[in-house]
Amino acid sequence: MKYCSDCGAPVSLRIPPGDNLPRYVCERCQAIHYQNPKLVVGCIPERGDEILLCRRAINPRYGLWTLPAGFMENGETTAEAAAREAMEEANANVAIGSLFSLFNLPHINQVYLIFHGQLLNADYAPGTESLEVALFHEANIPWDELAFPAIQRTLRYYYQDRRNGTLSLHLGDITSSAPSPGK
Amino acid sequence: MKYCSDCGAPVSLRIPPGDNLPRYVCERCQAIHYQNPKLVVGCIPERGDEILLCRRAINPRYGLWTLPAGFMENGETTAEAAAREAMEEANANVAIGSLFSLFNLPHINQVYLIFHGQLLNADYAPGTESLEVALFHEANIPWDELAFPAIQRTLRYYYQDRRNGTLSLHLGDITSSAPSPGK
Repeated sequence: MKYCSDCGAPVSLRIPPGDNLPRYVCERCQAIHYQNPKLVVGCIPERGDEILLCRRAINPRYGLWTLPAGFMENGETTAEAAAREAMEEANANVAIGSLFSLFNLPHINQVYLIFHGQLLNADYAPGTESLEVALFHEANIPWDELAFPAIQRTLRYYYQDRRNGTLSLHLGDITSSAPSPGK
Repeated sequence: MKYCSDCGAPVSLRIPPGDNLPRYVCERCQAIHYQNPKLVVGCIPERGDEILLCRRAINPRYGLWTLPAGFMENGETTAEAAAREAMEEANANVAIGSLFSLFNLPHINQVYLIFHGQLLNADYAPGTESLEVALFHEANIPWDELAFPAIQRTLRYYYQDRRNGTLSLHLGDITSSAPSPGK
């Protein structure tokens, strides 16, 4: 941020009176421009023993596989965001269930929320941000071609829970963008 | 938003190519300025059978009671944000536990996350944003003087869970800023 979005004057990065963190402050109109983490919301679309993954047609991580997920928009709920992303990325009708995982990515100011989801029919197809979408059994999950560490961690916990017959909420922190090795 | 925060030129509200929602777009440098929901993160600080509430010294809802909670900052995790808010608002050392509630407030573009917390000692005191801080038994909770619907709903679920001997994650939507009536 270089200019005030309220009045167009240059901003400075400084600690406002009564605050304890540097903020972008307008030197003309004194507006304080806070910057906060963004929510990335998605789901694990289940159909029987399979789940739906999308192969990315956009950067970052073009060509790698991911769960349908993306930035939450103003005016929607987290469940609405998760359903919308499944529709946008995979033309998939998904009934969003309980929250499965929350991952903090403080180095990139993101919080991932991934929900359980039930794929309501087989009429899925790649959206404009996907090269292909496909159902996968656990044995065929492309572990070495997953796009993001938060997705890899989510899927690991998911299959661990399925094996254990438990379904719990998973909280965790991811402090590097490097994918962790293999399965 | 009226001006581009990258170059200072006026912005227009329009749907960029390939998008489906109106965004603030710079007519000079073409930057697209997305706006997304903010996370409000807090905790229920427990000490024995009591919980710690703060009486607000700031607007909105000056003089009303709330759990320590506030906007998550860049560079921190949700648990760090919850612990920081307890320290800022109540000078309270709290060990943050599991996630207790997630409330969507789509009309004001917020998502509340409230965690369980253990108050580690009795050295609490009002921070600059609190008039007073105090421990409350369930019988003394000021139900009609709670600041926010999300806090009221969280505390209702909390005592319901305690009575039932269960502790589950509560998800919900709050679509109005009006406090719901009484207890």
